[in-house]
Amino acid sequence: MMVKDIQITPAKTSKIHDVDFNNLQFGRVFTDHMFECDFKDGKWSNPKIVPYAPLTMEPSARVFHYGQAVFEGMKAYRDDNDELFLFRPDENYARINKSAARLAIPEFPEDFFFEGLKQLILLDKDWVKKGWGNSLYIRPFVIATEGAIAASPAEEYKFMIILSPAQAYYSQEVRVLFAEKFSRSADGGVGYAKAAGNYAAQFYPTSLAHERGYQQIIWTDASTHEYLEEAGTMNIFFRVNDKLITAPNNDRILDGVTRKSVIQLAQDAGVDVEVRRVPVAEIKEAARNGSLKEIFGAGTAAVINPIAGFEHAGSTYELPKMEDSYATLFKEKLMNIQYNKAEDPHNWRFKIS
Amino acid sequence: MMVKDIQITPAKTSKIHDVDFNNLQFGRVFTDHMFECDFKDGKWSNPKIVPYAPLTMEPSARVFHYGQAVFEGMKAYRDDNDELFLFRPDENYARINKSAARLAIPEFPEDFFFEGLKQLILLDKDWVKKGWGNSLYIRPFVIATEGAIAASPAEEYKFMIILSPAQAYYSQEVRVLFAEKFSRSADGGVGYAKAAGNYAAQFYPTSLAHERGYQQIIWTDASTHEYLEEAGTMNIFFRVNDKLITAPNNDRILDGVTRKSVIQLAQDAGVDVEVRRVPVAEIKEAARNGSLKEIFGAGTAAVINPIAGFEHAGSTYELPKMEDSYATLFKEKLMNIQYNKAEDPHNWRFKIS
Ligand SMILES: Cc1ncc(COP(=O)(O)O)c(C=O)c1O
Ligand SMILES: Cc1ncc(COP(=O)(O)O)c(C=O)c1O
Repeated sequence: MMVKDIQITPAKTSKIHDVDFNNLQFGRVFTDHMFECDFKDGKWSNPKIVPYAPLTMEPSARVFHYGQAVFEGMKAYRDDNDELFLFRPDENYARINKSAARLAIPEFPEDFFFEGLKQLILLDKDWVKKGWGNSLYIRPFVIATEGAIAASPAEEYKFMIILSPAQAYYSQEVRVLFAEKFSRSADGGVGYAKAAGNYAAQFYPTSLAHERGYQQIIWTDASTHEYLEEAGTMNIFFRVNDKLITAPNNDRILDGVTRKSVIQLAQDAGVDVEVRRVPVAEIKEAARNGSLKEIFGAGTAAVINPIAGFEHAGSTYELPKMEDSYATLFKEKLMNIQYNKAEDPHNWRFKIS
Repeated sequence: MMVKDIQITPAKTSKIHDVDFNNLQFGRVFTDHMFECDFKDGKWSNPKIVPYAPLTMEPSARVFHYGQAVFEGMKAYRDDNDELFLFRPDENYARINKSAARLAIPEFPEDFFFEGLKQLILLDKDWVKKGWGNSLYIRPFVIATEGAIAASPAEEYKFMIILSPAQAYYSQEVRVLFAEKFSRSADGGVGYAKAAGNYAAQFYPTSLAHERGYQQIIWTDASTHEYLEEAGTMNIFFRVNDKLITAPNNDRILDGVTRKSVIQLAQDAGVDVEVRRVPVAEIKEAARNGSLKEIFGAGTAAVINPIAGFEHAGSTYELPKMEDSYATLFKEKLMNIQYNKAEDPHNWRFKIS
């Protein structure tokens, strides 16, 4: 598809000078433009970039009533030579359509996705700041816009991309609860999709965790609560001695881009990686006998997020402070690729131009 | 709370004359007004009734990204003397707040709910048509409006009520699939809440069922798929000989108002009702040996919906055509109460005036 197919209406003025880029709260400030494209009469059409502005929605839009919505999360990075990069955007494209299929949302065309993404970022490129940890968070999403309160798939949708400048994510020490009662998703459900409803479902249990001093929950399988799966917006890795263990993808777990990149980097570095079910009992035993060296989360927003301790069944466990932690090692390796400071043997970097 | 607290802006003209009340598609036509109330700065305030119109929403509104939204479904009925009634609205009020709590949405005040409901219906009362099966479908809902793409509860919400005139729901013969692989909700999840995301999650499996000639899925428990739970928007009853069996409420099942009313009416009529787990194997065996007389769904939209047959594990089962079916009996009993044609021993009718 050619550039000219996306109709661009530039903003009259930019908001960029009102933004304090050293004090950004995640996901609260948006750039000057947004991309949108509508599904109607059986096809996606009318892709356009317009000034960032509120939407007009029917009160009966199905997204409000039936949660028919999926999204993605990715980032753009600026290197020292002012070149802009994405990280494995093909994975996000594939995943939004996998999510869409599960929610009965029509697939979004590849050329619209990549052209929309590139043109939008280029138009708002001044919002991608240089510097380690700085990025432009990219949020593609699809919502069911059709106004009809019948519990069936919509016939009209809006695909959008909005952009939000971001600094490094979590800063505090993260302690987590292993889920014992609440659950995030079921076998045969939508846990593997980035479906909007998966997230709201976690808010209440997470707020209970917060009240008890835990920042996150590590979800366990809903049937037995005996196997560790993932956190709210991160996949989870366990380091036992020098081995790295993470749960396999299944119906319930999001197939994270950061997760698969960490697995690859670990294998490249000769680290023994086991992708298999992770029993709560094994991790507790490893914590007790000292072989559990690290737990960390992996996700686009936080990159790698070390976990300092956990609670399960009333017992708390503190993790050792590691010198040469895998969390630090793989975060560095990943970011070096993302910021064009290292070789990119797997072709993960995607230059925007 | 006094009437004067709700600010009313009447519509300049009514759309009612453009509507063909004999050819209504469910949930597509809305009345002239809507109720709204905003949560901001820690409280619900500014309840108002305004002309039905599109909403202005931030593209980053959390409902679009994280599915933080709950809803209710109820109906208003007009009797032969032109009096208007609701059916057990206290149950819907209690349930929307139960749903809200699970989705970390602030509770909505009782007086706002009932005053908003009454005033709105009275203003649009001409839309409630006389006649058996005619009703005004009422859709209260809450959406997270705050613009912030962080996966945490919003600090701003909108509560709304919209109204849609309805005729009797399903008409065709309904055949269902018993779920074997897909599932609707998990233990410890949000299945018992009328959470928006629960519905979109069913669209894809249901579309596969449609392709095979089934209108609905009866969901089974996600862990084993051995127990029958409920349908997409109906609770399910099984009649084995003269006994009525239905699944108990739990984490995964919506506590339906129609269900609990049918249980009560059945008990009043001296019918043996068992509220207990319903094994797929038992129902199949009962179908084979002829003791399974009926299956029917119960929900506000359809009232009672007889099911003509089902499929499970590649085998299909047809149900007998019953003369004195419970489905017909209890539908009649329920509607007689709803339309003020029978005594109301349990005080379920709620007169609007
Ligand atoms: C539930 C869940 N798990 C894991 C992740 C991590 O995935 P990724 O590395 O692709 O960002 C995310 C996304 O942010 C997520 O929402
Ligand atoms: C999942 C589900 N089950 C059952 C029902 C029936 O509940 P009620 O009888 O309160 O309408 C509904 C609501 O319509 C529902 O959404």
